[in-house]
Amino acid sequence: MTKLWGGRFTRDTDASVEEFTSSISFDQRMYRQDILGSMAHARMLGKCGIITQAETEQILDGLKSILTDIEAGNFTFEIALEDIHMNVEKCLTERIGPVGGKLHTARSRNDQVALDTHMYMKTAILAIARLIHDMEQSIVEVAAAHKEIILPGYTHLQRAQPVLLSHHLLAYFQMLSRDFDRLAGVWQRSDIMPLGAGALAGTTFPIDRQMVADELKFAKIYENSMDAVSDRDYIVEFLSFASILMVHLSRLSEELILWSSTEFSFIELDDAHCTGSSIMPQKKNPDVCELVRGKTGRVVGHLMAMLTTLKGLPMTYNKDMQEDKEGLFDTIDTLKFSLSVYAAMLKGMKVNADRMRQVLDDDFSNATDMADYLVRKGLPFREAHSVVGKAVRLAIETKRNLAELALEDLLALCPLFEADILAALRIETCIEARNSAGGTSFAQVNLALEKCRHTLQRQQAMIETYIQGNI
Amino acid sequence: MTKLWGGRFTRDTDASVEEFTSSISFDQRMYRQDILGSMAHARMLGKCGIITQAETEQILDGLKSILTDIEAGNFTFEIALEDIHMNVEKCLTERIGPVGGKLHTARSRNDQVALDTHMYMKTAILAIARLIHDMEQSIVEVAAAHKEIILPGYTHLQRAQPVLLSHHLLAYFQMLSRDFDRLAGVWQRSDIMPLGAGALAGTTFPIDRQMVADELKFAKIYENSMDAVSDRDYIVEFLSFASILMVHLSRLSEELILWSSTEFSFIELDDAHCTGSSIMPQKKNPDVCELVRGKTGRVVGHLMAMLTTLKGLPMTYNKDMQEDKEGLFDTIDTLKFSLSVYAAMLKGMKVNADRMRQVLDDDFSNATDMADYLVRKGLPFREAHSVVGKAVRLAIETKRNLAELALEDLLALCPLFEADILAALRIETCIEARNSAGGTSFAQVNLALEKCRHTLQRQQAMIETYIQGNI
Amino acid sequence: MTKLWGGRFTRDTDASVEEFTSSISFDQRMYRQDILGSMAHARMLGKCGIITQAETEQILDGLKSILTDIEAGNFTFEIALEDIHMNVEKCLTERIGPVGGKLHTARSRNDQVALDTHMYMKTAILAIARLIHDMEQSIVEVAAAHKEIILPGYTHLQRAQPVLLSHHLLAYFQMLSRDFDRLAGVWQRSDIMPLGAGALAGTTFPIDRQMVADELKFAKIYENSMDAVSDRDYIVEFLSFASILMVHLSRLSEELILWSSTEFSFIELDDAHCTGSSIMPQKKNPDVCELVRGKTGRVVGHLMAMLTTLKGLPMTYNKDMQEDKEGLFDTIDTLKFSLSVYAAMLKGMKVNADRMRQVLDDDFSNATDMADYLVRKGLPFREAHSVVGKAVRLAIETKRNLAELALEDLLALCPLFEADILAALRIETCIEARNSAGGTSFAQVNLALEKCRHTLQRQQAMIETYIQGNI
Amino acid sequence: MTKLWGGRFTRDTDASVEEFTSSISFDQRMYRQDILGSMAHARMLGKCGIITQAETEQILDGLKSILTDIEAGNFTFEIALEDIHMNVEKCLTERIGPVGGKLHTARSRNDQVALDTHMYMKTAILAIARLIHDMEQSIVEVAAAHKEIILPGYTHLQRAQPVLLSHHLLAYFQMLSRDFDRLAGVWQRSDIMPLGAGALAGTTFPIDRQMVADELKFAKIYENSMDAVSDRDYIVEFLSFASILMVHLSRLSEELILWSSTEFSFIELDDAHCTGSSIMPQKKNPDVCELVRGKTGRVVGHLMAMLTTLKGLPMTYNKDMQEDKEGLFDTIDTLKFSLSVYAAMLKGMKVNADRMRQVLDDDFSNATDMADYLVRKGLPFREAHSVVGKAVRLAIETKRNLAELALEDLLALCPLFEADILAALRIETCIEARNSAGGTSFAQVNLALEKCRHTLQRQQAMIETYIQGNI
Repeated sequence: MTKLWGGRFTRDTDASVEEFTSSISFDQRMYRQDILGSMAHARMLGKCGIITQAETEQILDGLKSILTDIEAGNFTFEIALEDIHMNVEKCLTERIGPVGGKLHTARSRNDQVALDTHMYMKTAILAIARLIHDMEQSIVEVAAAHKEIILPGYTHLQRAQPVLLSHHLLAYFQMLSRDFDRLAGVWQRSDIMPLGAGALAGTTFPIDRQMVADELKFAKIYENSMDAVSDRDYIVEFLSFASILMVHLSRLSEELILWSSTEFSFIELDDAHCTGSSIMPQKKNPDVCELVRGKTGRVVGHLMAMLTTLKGLPMTYNKDMQEDKEGLFDTIDTLKFSLSVYAAMLKGMKVNADRMRQVLDDDFSNATDMADYLVRKGLPFREAHSVVGKAVRLAIETKRNLAELALEDLLALCPLFEADILAALRIETCIEARNSAGGTSFAQVNLALEKCRHTLQRQQAMIETYIQGNI
Repeated sequence: MTKLWGGRFTRDTDASVEEFTSSISFDQRMYRQDILGSMAHARMLGKCGIITQAETEQILDGLKSILTDIEAGNFTFEIALEDIHMNVEKCLTERIGPVGGKLHTARSRNDQVALDTHMYMKTAILAIARLIHDMEQSIVEVAAAHKEIILPGYTHLQRAQPVLLSHHLLAYFQMLSRDFDRLAGVWQRSDIMPLGAGALAGTTFPIDRQMVADELKFAKIYENSMDAVSDRDYIVEFLSFASILMVHLSRLSEELILWSSTEFSFIELDDAHCTGSSIMPQKKNPDVCELVRGKTGRVVGHLMAMLTTLKGLPMTYNKDMQEDKEGLFDTIDTLKFSLSVYAAMLKGMKVNADRMRQVLDDDFSNATDMADYLVRKGLPFREAHSVVGKAVRLAIETKRNLAELALEDLLALCPLFEADILAALRIETCIEARNSAGGTSFAQVNLALEKCRHTLQRQQAMIETYIQGNI
Repeated sequence: MTKLWGGRFTRDTDASVEEFTSSISFDQRMYRQDILGSMAHARMLGKCGIITQAETEQILDGLKSILTDIEAGNFTFEIALEDIHMNVEKCLTERIGPVGGKLHTARSRNDQVALDTHMYMKTAILAIARLIHDMEQSIVEVAAAHKEIILPGYTHLQRAQPVLLSHHLLAYFQMLSRDFDRLAGVWQRSDIMPLGAGALAGTTFPIDRQMVADELKFAKIYENSMDAVSDRDYIVEFLSFASILMVHLSRLSEELILWSSTEFSFIELDDAHCTGSSIMPQKKNPDVCELVRGKTGRVVGHLMAMLTTLKGLPMTYNKDMQEDKEGLFDTIDTLKFSLSVYAAMLKGMKVNADRMRQVLDDDFSNATDMADYLVRKGLPFREAHSVVGKAVRLAIETKRNLAELALEDLLALCPLFEADILAALRIETCIEARNSAGGTSFAQVNLALEKCRHTLQRQQAMIETYIQGNI
Repeated sequence: MTKLWGGRFTRDTDASVEEFTSSISFDQRMYRQDILGSMAHARMLGKCGIITQAETEQILDGLKSILTDIEAGNFTFEIALEDIHMNVEKCLTERIGPVGGKLHTARSRNDQVALDTHMYMKTAILAIARLIHDMEQSIVEVAAAHKEIILPGYTHLQRAQPVLLSHHLLAYFQMLSRDFDRLAGVWQRSDIMPLGAGALAGTTFPIDRQMVADELKFAKIYENSMDAVSDRDYIVEFLSFASILMVHLSRLSEELILWSSTEFSFIELDDAHCTGSSIMPQKKNPDVCELVRGKTGRVVGHLMAMLTTLKGLPMTYNKDMQEDKEGLFDTIDTLKFSLSVYAAMLKGMKVNADRMRQVLDDDFSNATDMADYLVRKGLPFREAHSVVGKAVRLAIETKRNLAELALEDLLALCPLFEADILAALRIETCIEARNSAGGTSFAQVNLALEKCRHTLQRQQAMIETYIQGNI
């Protein structure tokens, strides 16, 4: 097929090269952005007198009809036309004649593809911001519904101190709210309009870049044309945001998998979110959690891919950069899936409060409270720690828990113990006592739920600005 | 849709979860391996008396008809059936009745998917070994065809010493031949038969794993069932092999891009392997080279993804491992494309021998030879180096090259110079003189070409064993 | 050596395990943060009545004397004491007796190490923000000093269109200014005070976390204790910021290496920033650029390391997280080196303006201007592109540049050419004509320099807030 | 300080650049390789008549004295001398006069550093091969010592089928034995002698590369000089080998961490391999396992770093490649630590056989055996699976295990059940029945232990060849 750029060439492109260098198989996903961007460009060309008003109308009508056809599924994308831009433009010229060729005045594919990707990114950010918000909402609901349930908190996967389940879950709210804030940074650095940079140096036509930016709801325009066509920072930054978010989900996944094990038995996921085994009839596997944990690798891999690809590229556009889209699109899809399934799964899970309580009665997670008790009686913390260490050893050797040790046993270790040690060791006391700001006490967690709801409102306002910034 | 494993479940799988956890969209690519593997399994079950001969025949006929239909494009894969295994088995049962359910006796999807992937990997290795061989062949041909052409050799992208173009190209042959050898290691660790491991612990049926291995042309069987279902080493090892290979191609790409620049003008790639610009009519861009260089990121990213996914997984199979295939398949495709396009592109490129020669006459890449000249006259190398450093500085300041410096200028720097210095500085002398083993002299490069041809023969034998090991 | 936590243990730690699990070899770098953090904690304990005022004074005096000794080099860190916290505390107890043990009241090493790292990060951010600012300043100076110099702009490493050197350099200013903004996001998410989270659940003592935050100049406190001890987002985010920054420097490095090659000869780096060869006396290698480009790998590697380490960890603190520091510290060092050496190197480089100009007279980078010329005469862009493509082919075949083609040759290709085509093809015309916002025209670049100076001022204000946020 | 290569330079290197580009801080670790390599080079120069015998002796004596001094700690490395090569050579010239300068005849730092690194790698491979062997030995011992202990085998962290602990542990033996084999590939591609490649093109002196290879116990010499100085494949391949090995250790770590949790309580690690908490006196944390799991990130990061650094580098040596060593050295150290501590830790761990047994009596891991029972009675597997699924649901609902279901309950689900179902459900029956090759039956595991011991012997022979290949 004759290429639009073929003038100086004497031989056709090799067919396998056409396929290899073509991006239409994946960039067709940006058809809407490409056409809306072209329409804004055409209007601007018309307004600035670079094309006539009649030409503008012809082009706009042609583009609209193509958009309609694509959305109706009546459009065939051709590999030989390389990319979404050429596919649209070729069709435009077929429909409205040579005037279609005027659409590409004062722009290049370099700034056009940058425009499309920025617009696509902004749409994706809006969708993902909403999904983070949904999952946070889900966390708050589940936490509120299980406000008084106590389970062991862990460090090193060893039981450490009792915590409220709501407190535990709200830690993930904090992570997600940082993700939400990080995404705002990506938005800020995506919300910049590149069109008008031309191939790399700007254009010789008297264009109005600000008009295009306004039409397409961009907050700013790129200030340097060479930067405009070679900047892929916002993609790397998005992939980095996504990697951190997936690490958060991988940690939550790990916990839900642990809690679903027979050994922990802290929760039961809904049948709708589990699958079975083709061979072992008793199995109910937390597949979704495992898959999300596994997909963390995929997203981190895409980040790695992009960094490797960009490393050492000279100015300005190099074909290597075409590799920016597939990983990005796959990451967007992965985040959408993961966030939405988690929002539902958390709400569907059954919490085994009895089991959580039962294991607490049988362990040493109140040992710190025994040490703190001694500190309040005047012992330096380091000595209190040592006394309780011995108490724990004694309890293990005699198969008791701390509350079951006799007072005389304790007095043999330290003369400061009194009868009130038993009250100090109660699990509810342990919870109640951690009333420092951000601690696990009932009061603190109520306060925290309040703050989370405020955060959700603040985020809602942010989502509004994303809506305003999308067309 | 009712799941084959649904007995203990009370609720259906969520639709989005079905899509999320389903692998049929990408693992259908292994349909041939899945069916051939099932046929070998069925024959073994029959031979061992676990199913009857009649049942065996029924199953084999059913599977054959499914294979035929898939290859003819007359088969619809269903997401709700999760994966290629269930899609095939469901259809089998529809075609031959309940006896189809006996096929899954003594195996699990865990060992079945491992089998399929091992078989697929072996097929891929054969294909890629051939393509490496082709590209090496191409290098040898191009090197042989340009045996006497001299160009500057570079370190730090600064001209260093003259080298033969053939010598330069054969460096890439060496890299590729190491890749070929590395691939043999992947083969060795892929050519192990996992079936019979069951879900994780082996099976209670009196199966004959060796028979399946023989039928499917595997050299060995996995010695530990838990390892068999959880081993993904061979995939990581393949991705690592592929990453190194792509780094090699990225280096060659960088050089071809440099050599195609106006500044270097050492080569011109065929029009068939370049593309133009939508805006700049003069452009002829080395897109293929850039894209291959860029795709290095993609392959490295897949390696990273797999390592991240596997990190920290407990025994044995976890759903995270389903993430092993997409990156693998994409890597295989990328290697196939890259190797085959390079084999053709190298043969199609035009070498500008005149330009290469001309730049040599105008630079200092013979400076080492001046130093070696002084060493042969008795000066310690370090002092000779210092003398020539001063000569270079003088030449730069007076805009001459080394051969243009007057003898008296040289004598002022060192009394050992004589008239024969001019001959020593000739480019051909420089080439000829580097006659140490593996050096760039004409004799050494002729020898090297000979050795490369032997390597190609040795590799051909290896390819034969890959053919024998595939069904 | 007896461990401070040894109460329940019956056997000593294995010596190699001590070395393996110890972090003192690298975390001693945070001694200042650790001691200042402890002093703030002690003052708070005193103010809240958890320890007496006399105890507070004793502890503060002891800590001050340790700080003095470390800074004077009079302190020996011991591996058996595991980390900086235990090294300091052990010494404190030796100096002031058992009261030293009270310092650890109401805190854990989990929140303590988090505090130290947050403080260290804030100090590092301040330093790096200054260095980015310096390098940007350097770019602006060099751009301003070479404002009128024209060189070919490249896409695909093929000459594309002429650009001002200042315009080209300012593209890097834009990248760095995005890096500066991204760093502000890291600051925001590092400037949160974790102390008071205790081991994971908060503390039973009536502490005042806000007081500690105020003393240590933190803007906020962590709102969830479990999150406080397990959050490593800010480190990953910093490594991600650093990776993008290093990719920018790798691109600049690549360009400086290209420009330093004999083939380009666009610049000459100062001797002070190059090194030579032990064997080739003529060599002057751009080592610094290569090393910075190479060190991109190191920083990206640290990012990947951290993501891999964090993936799949359950709440809250796990020892894996100790791996967060070495990569962070090495990244900070690498950025400091790279940014400061680049600030100096750019100012020291000699620009070969004549050479740049000379190559422009000899190439086709004005081809787009010929096409734009035809568009202004009424031809649709796509047809103009085709005409110029043919003109380029003709010129290549007859070894001329576009301005050397006779008017009749041009008229044979398109009847719209007139004598004014020559003026349109002048390089200065090409530059001047790209006067769209952000383009390379002299006017636009002057405007851009003005904007960059405003950006530098805005950044200076940001640096002030970093100074205020550090103690 | 005057550089040995400074002849053409007019200004000194910037001090910070000196530090930045210097590698002596980390490459001094290769002092032994550097000096032994130089000695072999000197002997060869003497034998080939390039230097006199007297000069050879002088050089050898000088080098020997330097080696002695370094090993005695009496040598100061200087940053301004850049690297180990220059540090040694400078000292040599100081000790034996200008003849020291002759040592560098016919070589360059490019091939010299390659030689040192190859030699260092071979030494490291020997050490690591031994440590893998030790850890495997440890696994075999522990497996043999606990041969009859049964625990649940897991998929998806859900109990799947009972397995022998020895069978479970031997899965790790298989992984490590693949690592051992992979390492042999690294050896093969490291055991190639680069010296004589000169800077890149070979040398003009009549050297004997084979003699140097023989002296230094190399199996082969590099066949292409340009490849010899730019090949870093063996380092990437080693890092990839190391990453896979660390992933294996991360999986084992995860399991030991799980098994050490209160919830599992399957094992207790020795106090010598655990640490406590500064605040929670009851804690005994599996720090070593967590740290090894965490260090997987570090090693994967080094692999990614190297791939990123190498991507897109043109031939031949570029300074970027200096980045190859720190990550390599750190990886070697990490592997040595991890392997040796695991060899000891496994032997020191206490297995809670009673607990393992107890949990089996209480779960459904014998469900597959119930299905297989029905298959043997004539039911197609898929139907049997469905029957057992319902039995499991019934048991869960009535809080019984499968063996506790009444025969009439079972008969209601399927008429094929008979009284012998109870025997079929016994855990020992389940183990015994999985007697397919590689299964978990007692007989198979005994066989497997035998095979492992043969593997250990085979590996011992390999280690012998590594010893022979090191000097």
